[in-house]
Amino acid sequence: MRQTRLMPIIRNIKLTLEYDGTNFNGWQIQDPKKRTVQGEIEKVLSQIFKKKCRLIGSGRTDSGVHAKAQVANFKTNSTMTPGQILKALNAWLPEDIAITNAEEVSLNFHAQYSAKSKTYRYSILNRATRFALDRHFSFFYSYPLNLNLMHREIKTLLGKKDFKSFQAMDIARLEKNTTRTIKKIQIKKSVDFIYIDIEADGFLYKMIRNIVGTLLEIGSGRRPPGSMKKILEKKNRQLAGQTAPALGLCLLEVKY
Amino acid sequence: MRQTRLMPIIRNIKLTLEYDGTNFNGWQIQDPKKRTVQGEIEKVLSQIFKKKCRLIGSGRTDSGVHAKAQVANFKTNSTMTPGQILKALNAWLPEDIAITNAEEVSLNFHAQYSAKSKTYRYSILNRATRFALDRHFSFFYSYPLNLNLMHREIKTLLGKKDFKSFQAMDIARLEKNTTRTIKKIQIKKSVDFIYIDIEADGFLYKMIRNIVGTLLEIGSGRRPPGSMKKILEKKNRQLAGQTAPALGLCLLEVKY
Repeated sequence: MRQTRLMPIIRNIKLTLEYDGTNFNGWQIQDPKKRTVQGEIEKVLSQIFKKKCRLIGSGRTDSGVHAKAQVANFKTNSTMTPGQILKALNAWLPEDIAITNAEEVSLNFHAQYSAKSKTYRYSILNRATRFALDRHFSFFYSYPLNLNLMHREIKTLLGKKDFKSFQAMDIARLEKNTTRTIKKIQIKKSVDFIYIDIEADGFLYKMIRNIVGTLLEIGSGRRPPGSMKKILEKKNRQLAGQTAPALGLCLLEVKY
Repeated sequence: MRQTRLMPIIRNIKLTLEYDGTNFNGWQIQDPKKRTVQGEIEKVLSQIFKKKCRLIGSGRTDSGVHAKAQVANFKTNSTMTPGQILKALNAWLPEDIAITNAEEVSLNFHAQYSAKSKTYRYSILNRATRFALDRHFSFFYSYPLNLNLMHREIKTLLGKKDFKSFQAMDIARLEKNTTRTIKKIQIKKSVDFIYIDIEADGFLYKMIRNIVGTLLEIGSGRRPPGSMKKILEKKNRQLAGQTAPALGLCLLEVKY
């Protein structure tokens, strides 16, 4: 069918963005009085295009969680180039959100449903004394940790498993299907910092923070080796450890 | 001379500390209404020891400049161990200052006068789009930079030289002797970040930020190669480039 001049051409724009989650109530708009990443970006998009614009994220991140490369998309009939949209957004957005890329994608691209995998990093400062510089981006944990043991324990989570034991018991966010596939797990050490990188096809609510909390209890000797496997098999959240704080978590990459 | 029981034993305590300079008016107390690192620590030391305590820093850092390992010392007749002092300080200090080490040193140790060298790092984010995560700790510079050229230019500053051209023209802080010895210069690249590390026996007021500002102008092609050497030889601040912003600068190490 020929497009007439009166019919505006709808385009789908994919954004890659970075945010410091410290002063946000997470990604998703819930209460409009609360400051959210989605809310801030939709507000600026609506100013740029002079009409309401709905932004779809690859997934919500919780209050305090950061992102190095969150992905989102929106549809528009504006004739602005992706480069112009990127510049306009970065000029108007608050300094704790930065758009790092904008590109036009096919109309059926959906930031959430098209995602194949996500990689998160959990950062821990592991030394005797607290810190000042990275305090909003890493969790300070002073107990000595056995990294080799942690590595062995967390590797038992690799593959397609039922992660029910690591799903937060928040009734509003419980999912019936609690099976996910963890594709990759890495633990890296750099001076006093420990980084736990996990790639999966998806994550249950607070799943990574519950895994990390449990892992720290094992690594510091407060739970016996082998605990991770046992907890996973029991499919009972009450057996897992404490939820690690949000500030250590950062969305590193979304693959499509 | 024997020390009597009535005469308290004076001890000298050396502190190593980290701070996020974002919300400080620099290290040194000037106007007591302004928040300074020295002011915050002296306040807490006075609370701990129930008497006024004077803290000597290795040197002042400007408003907005950070420190990974600033060094300071103070004298006390308290019988608290260094470990106890460290714990008490970290419990009472605001979260943007953290003491990472406390130890007893000889009475003639002086954090400023005993220092042999200091190493600062200047961090730059060099890419097309601004950022959100490290925005308080790196300077965003979007023009493409020629790192090899920058490396050659800055190496001409190595050794004992008169750095008058790079001293800020602040009358209150002008020094007659403007000769300093730069012992080491390194430029490192990590993804989009560029780190310039400089070790010297001392620095003039804003010297590093003036060197970095000039270097960026050369590296981005706005000044010809060879400019660094020429500016140094002319001993005239007006020939050097703009002062790079404070937030990119961090005191990495003080050697004694």
